Amino acid sequence: MRDVAIVGVGITKFGERWEHGLKELMAEAGLMALQDAKMESKEIEMVYGGTMAPGKFIGQEHVAALLADQLGLQNTPAVRIENACASGGSALRQGYIAVASGIHDVVVVGGVEKMTDVNASEATTALGGAGDQEWELFQGITFPGLYALIAKRHMKEFGTTEEQMAAVSVKNHDNAYRNKYAQFHRKLSIEDVMRSKMVADPLKVLDCSPISDGAAAVVLVPLDKAKKYNDLPIRIIGSGQASDSLSLAERDSLTELKATKIAAQNAYKQAGINAEDVDIAEVHDCFSIAEILAMEDLGFYKKGEAAKAIAAGETALNSKLSVNTSGGLKGCGHPVGATGVKQAVEITWQLRGEAGERQVNGAEIGMAHNVGGSGATAVVHLFKRAD
Amino acid sequence: MRDVAIVGVGITKFGERWEHGLKELMAEAGLMALQDAKMESKEIEMVYGGTMAPGKFIGQEHVAALLADQLGLQNTPAVRIENACASGGSALRQGYIAVASGIHDVVVVGGVEKMTDVNASEATTALGGAGDQEWELFQGITFPGLYALIAKRHMKEFGTTEEQMAAVSVKNHDNAYRNKYAQFHRKLSIEDVMRSKMVADPLKVLDCSPISDGAAAVVLVPLDKAKKYNDLPIRIIGSGQASDSLSLAERDSLTELKATKIAAQNAYKQAGINAEDVDIAEVHDCFSIAEILAMEDLGFYKKGEAAKAIAAGETALNSKLSVNTSGGLKGCGHPVGATGVKQAVEITWQLRGEAGERQVNGAEIGMAHNVGGSGATAVVHLFKRAD
Repeated sequence: MRDVAIVGVGITKFGERWEHGLKELMAEAGLMALQDAKMESKEIEMVYGGTMAPGKFIGQEHVAALLADQLGLQNTPAVRIENACASGGSALRQGYIAVASGIHDVVVVGGVEKMTDVNASEATTALGGAGDQEWELFQGITFPGLYALIAKRHMKEFGTTEEQMAAVSVKNHDNAYRNKYAQFHRKLSIEDVMRSKMVADPLKVLDCSPISDGAAAVVLVPLDKAKKYNDLPIRIIGSGQASDSLSLAERDSLTELKATKIAAQNAYKQAGINAEDVDIAEVHDCFSIAEILAMEDLGFYKKGEAAKAIAAGETALNSKLSVNTSGGLKGCGHPVGATGVKQAVEITWQLRGEAGERQVNGAEIGMAHNVGGSGATAVVHLFKRAD
Repeated sequence: MRDVAIVGVGITKFGERWEHGLKELMAEAGLMALQDAKMESKEIEMVYGGTMAPGKFIGQEHVAALLADQLGLQNTPAVRIENACASGGSALRQGYIAVASGIHDVVVVGGVEKMTDVNASEATTALGGAGDQEWELFQGITFPGLYALIAKRHMKEFGTTEEQMAAVSVKNHDNAYRNKYAQFHRKLSIEDVMRSKMVADPLKVLDCSPISDGAAAVVLVPLDKAKKYNDLPIRIIGSGQASDSLSLAERDSLTELKATKIAAQNAYKQAGINAEDVDIAEVHDCFSIAEILAMEDLGFYKKGEAAKAIAAGETALNSKLSVNTSGGLKGCGHPVGATGVKQAVEITWQLRGEAGERQVNGAEIGMAHNVGGSGATAVVHLFKRAD
């Protein structure tokens, strides 16, 4: 197993990108990553493309070969990786394995979703495919509904309040305000969130990540070749992934994601670090309650203690642990397949010291945490500056 | 890079499986493969699931985690691999890389598609996502239409006839007749094919592979641990993959699949063999013309010479080179994501000498060739008995 480094990152603006199709978004992010790595496309040996439901959203499957084609890599092997909302993180992990194993030297990992070509009902149905369609979606429960069940149980067991959940959205919009690639540049108050339209009690629309278009890409090479491409390579020091039942009803607990716990333990073990060593984290806040679960399941807080800490500002920018500096899924937007790759882009910028107005001082170790569905897949990566 | 062996294979009957859902099909094939490997599910470290368009066919994404769940592997990491009709072969290659690299010791590769829950028009649209939706599908061309263009050009350049194409279907139905897992158990004559309904000139319905449900699975382990699980491990001696533009219009030639040529060259090189060393091959006959292209692009015949040879019986069962002994996509059926894995199952049975009525005498080296779309992905694997 070789050490692996990120030497190039690229991203599009996230949001309602009416003027751009899937191909243009992929090309924009991919070419930006290649330029960042000062690399010609012919050096690329393999492409991993993370995307969740392009068949449902725009009628296009076979997206990895299309991505290779868009990058001018007509004959380079490519595979699409799909694990619902964890498609991007899962693609990053497969790309990492390909380089770590020595099979490939230069790998591009892209993530993309073009979601705004369908109406809200179609989008909700497409996203419902991340859960158990037979036991959940076809019975009428949508994703906000599943996370609302989780939120209700968390409130009952630990006294978590709607205002504490709202604080997650407020913080993430504050961070997104400083990120030019983010979908939203609008600061929120707790009252804004509390007064927003109810989607699935207790989750209001401002507790929910949006429907978005966007793409992100990273270039991976062996660490010992990284300086050829970039003066500030970012090393992947841990990678973990785990699964769980798709259906919530089959889980032991509604208030933890076991897949997140196992993935994090494996990543920490590989990196030889603990939760307290992490300085910055991009975690999967598809709904405000999801960030609370994540902070607990990743080991940053004991179960039942994260909501209060977030509301007290412990995870704000340049606090004890800066969480979702990109704006997270809530503020930066959530083009599903792009999200897990975007997390790696943000951590790379932070560890390089290139995050501009939202730079975390002295960040040394970063984490990316990407969840599929209501927790049936979780992927955790840990990163550190290589020098 | 370690040597990798197949130690367990499983498959469902292919066809219109009204009484079984996606979950049941995956479980049936997966558990059969585990039993064949005399393995308990807890030994499995990673699951790769190949499937093309479950979102369009049944509203379910996130299928790899669901497969892991069905096998009782609730927390085992899993990823879905999608490369259109080459999803199964691509999943096999990723599983192979995972074991060869030393990242995992025991990997299950599954392939599945449940296609008959939608009507023919919906299925055609879903399959169209394997091509370039913007430049092909949305302009009104379907997959039979794309391959009809290829066929017309092949006829013009090399004098290939409709009767020679029909001979592919006749041969493959002959083989399927001997395979209890095949969708069709009906022998055809050249006249049957010639008189069948025109789909896209010159391709008639009996030149086309059918809409099918089905699943297949294989268990991969390092070769040096293989005998623990199976007395007749089958070694993967070569693995190659390549891409091409999705859109036919961007290719240099309509009468060859460049991705197939490159993937085959890479696989032969790794295995240290040539085309003439291959005894049995499962090739991608989504349409009769596709098997003709494959025989040429894989190096078995010079360009323009395969059609005549096939019509002369050179690739029939127990001839010079036995091709598509399973019945191929045409006779065995084509549940898209399952096909590439089914090819490996068939080659495994043949090399073990367990193929019953369709056993090829003295088969030593086998090939599986899986194509995505009209050739934007091709995956080639070479296999040999390990003893």
